[in-house]
Amino acid sequence: MRFRIIATDGGSRAGVMETERGLVLTPQFMPVGTLGTVKALSPEELRHAGAEVILCNTYHLYLRPGHETVRRLGGVQRFMGWPGPVLTDSGGFQVYSLSRLRNITPEGVEFRSHIDGSLHFIGPERAMEIQQALGADIIMAFDECTPYPSTYEYVRDSLRLTTEWAKRCRAAHPEGSSQALFGIFQGGTYRDLRLRSLEEIVEIGFDGYAAGGLSVGEPKGLMYEMIHATGSLMPADRPRYLMGIGDLLDVVEAVEAGYDIFDCVMPTRNARNGTLFTSAGRISIKRAEFSEDPSPLDPECDCYTCRSFSRAYLRHLYMSREILSMRLNTIHNLSFYMRFFRLMRESIIQGRFAEFKLEWMETLRGNFATERSRAALT
Amino acid sequence: MRFRIIATDGGSRAGVMETERGLVLTPQFMPVGTLGTVKALSPEELRHAGAEVILCNTYHLYLRPGHETVRRLGGVQRFMGWPGPVLTDSGGFQVYSLSRLRNITPEGVEFRSHIDGSLHFIGPERAMEIQQALGADIIMAFDECTPYPSTYEYVRDSLRLTTEWAKRCRAAHPEGSSQALFGIFQGGTYRDLRLRSLEEIVEIGFDGYAAGGLSVGEPKGLMYEMIHATGSLMPADRPRYLMGIGDLLDVVEAVEAGYDIFDCVMPTRNARNGTLFTSAGRISIKRAEFSEDPSPLDPECDCYTCRSFSRAYLRHLYMSREILSMRLNTIHNLSFYMRFFRLMRESIIQGRFAEFKLEWMETLRGNFATERSRAALT
Repeated sequence: MRFRIIATDGGSRAGVMETERGLVLTPQFMPVGTLGTVKALSPEELRHAGAEVILCNTYHLYLRPGHETVRRLGGVQRFMGWPGPVLTDSGGFQVYSLSRLRNITPEGVEFRSHIDGSLHFIGPERAMEIQQALGADIIMAFDECTPYPSTYEYVRDSLRLTTEWAKRCRAAHPEGSSQALFGIFQGGTYRDLRLRSLEEIVEIGFDGYAAGGLSVGEPKGLMYEMIHATGSLMPADRPRYLMGIGDLLDVVEAVEAGYDIFDCVMPTRNARNGTLFTSAGRISIKRAEFSEDPSPLDPECDCYTCRSFSRAYLRHLYMSREILSMRLNTIHNLSFYMRFFRLMRESIIQGRFAEFKLEWMETLRGNFATERSRAALT
Repeated sequence: MRFRIIATDGGSRAGVMETERGLVLTPQFMPVGTLGTVKALSPEELRHAGAEVILCNTYHLYLRPGHETVRRLGGVQRFMGWPGPVLTDSGGFQVYSLSRLRNITPEGVEFRSHIDGSLHFIGPERAMEIQQALGADIIMAFDECTPYPSTYEYVRDSLRLTTEWAKRCRAAHPEGSSQALFGIFQGGTYRDLRLRSLEEIVEIGFDGYAAGGLSVGEPKGLMYEMIHATGSLMPADRPRYLMGIGDLLDVVEAVEAGYDIFDCVMPTRNARNGTLFTSAGRISIKRAEFSEDPSPLDPECDCYTCRSFSRAYLRHLYMSREILSMRLNTIHNLSFYMRFFRLMRESIIQGRFAEFKLEWMETLRGNFATERSRAALT
């Protein structure tokens, strides 16, 4: 994988990641395809929505259908019929958030499957082995994602593990591998620990760098502080990935701070719950006022959903719990996200990112922001 | 609506229904789009699968979103974004099978919604009014669908109501309406009552004729007897519709008997439950043997699902309860059904329907048939 910066505007960067499966323009949003499918969408629809790279979850694919099965079927891209590049996380985040009875030792983490309670072990070498079998274009080092709140001492001690595991992941990554390996730094909400972790991970040397352990319940103000403190400190010639963050207000902050890549279930999960992003703000499709509204969901959107169906029909599908509802809503929300990122990239290239931010701030603040974002911003 | 027979072969007929929204070749299968959506599919996918006409349920659309809402949004076709013709049933079948506390009088049926228990009344005039508002291309007379088993006396008395209601539907249907109105005959499994009902309904005069009240639990042998007794007795120049029947073995019998149009939830409901129709027979996608099978579901099928995904992936999606599973399975099953009907039409036009029946019988009998079909056929 090669990465080039093609333009900068203040702290923000526009770049190109060249993978064997195609180009990825940054800033870029990665839709989440947990089990090898972005819920409700076909690969064709993902392409039409503008997706360039998909995130899949190692933890989930390891449990179902199993990484060796995916390997034998030609890797995760072929398995899911997605022609572009894929990134897999290391499995760590889900081990901490989903599984039961986890036991963290210097060797790794023992945990029970959230599906059937079976006992499993993943450490750095195993995480690499699984991700090599899955065959994604970009893979992630195995880390400990510290929860919020955690004491200073806990986070400090945890960083030793994360750095040690990062070294072992690096050592288990074959020279000349076609897979790019990204390192993850942690540090909770402690600025000095964040910077120390970043430094240690950068020293090991990876194809890209990622901030982990943010947006896990901490106040937005603290999160923004961590983002701004770290964005410009990673090597400028490598992609910078802010894991699990996708609230567009947060994204704009992070792009300003120098981050390039994002993933989040927000557009897809919200879509399934009937919350839709439009150029006039966030709406709930179940509102009674839409029951006879013949207009498209978002007149400024050219996605299949907006070109083909009325708000009234979308509301009807949602109220009737029809499968098509989740799909049409997901097509729209993802198209909206991908367009937002495209406009943001263009604004950086044209040297008017600050203007882009101002333009969108009102919409995002007034209608998009969660309560927490709003509180942090006002 | 105009109807022409273009070929016959024994009792079987190949025809063309000309509607304002396009041609419908017969024999034809109508996918069921209960609430204004064939579950999991977009209108584009329906077209690609080969669908020419969709059935929607009056009962369901009357309760949600309401027929007047659908009228104000331009009719059911526009509402659901389906460019072709639509047929609505009269609501009767669901009133009898789904709703609570129904009270049948000569005026109509009082019932409680299966959604919220609210009280409603549908009689022949109301059924016509609702269907006129929904605006389907083909609408159905309101009847009483007698259950199985019913006594001879009950069915005999019920026929008076069905005939009386058919007359009132006819009277409530405006001269020169752009909607075609089909009459329904009943008669349970009593041959003489079937023939009497058919005669009375034909005497009233409709744009097409339908057999109702079959496949409601009666033995297949009795059902086949009713089908063969009635198929050729309806006017030859009108479409003949066998309601609610879609087991392909039954369809072949009915086409042989002279029926033209069919509807059934079988391909779509089975798809969502992981039961798939292939040229080698009926399979359950959850079988462990498919877990690493890289081959397409049906090598003889050119649908999107078979062109794009492996059995292993389809099994994985099904086992993981992914939404995409229901959709890809539905695309396939419906494509299979539509191809079956196309091949059947061609065989009639080419004068080799008997050969077609023989060719398929083995596959259908061995791998498709339900236990009941098999018992009736051997």
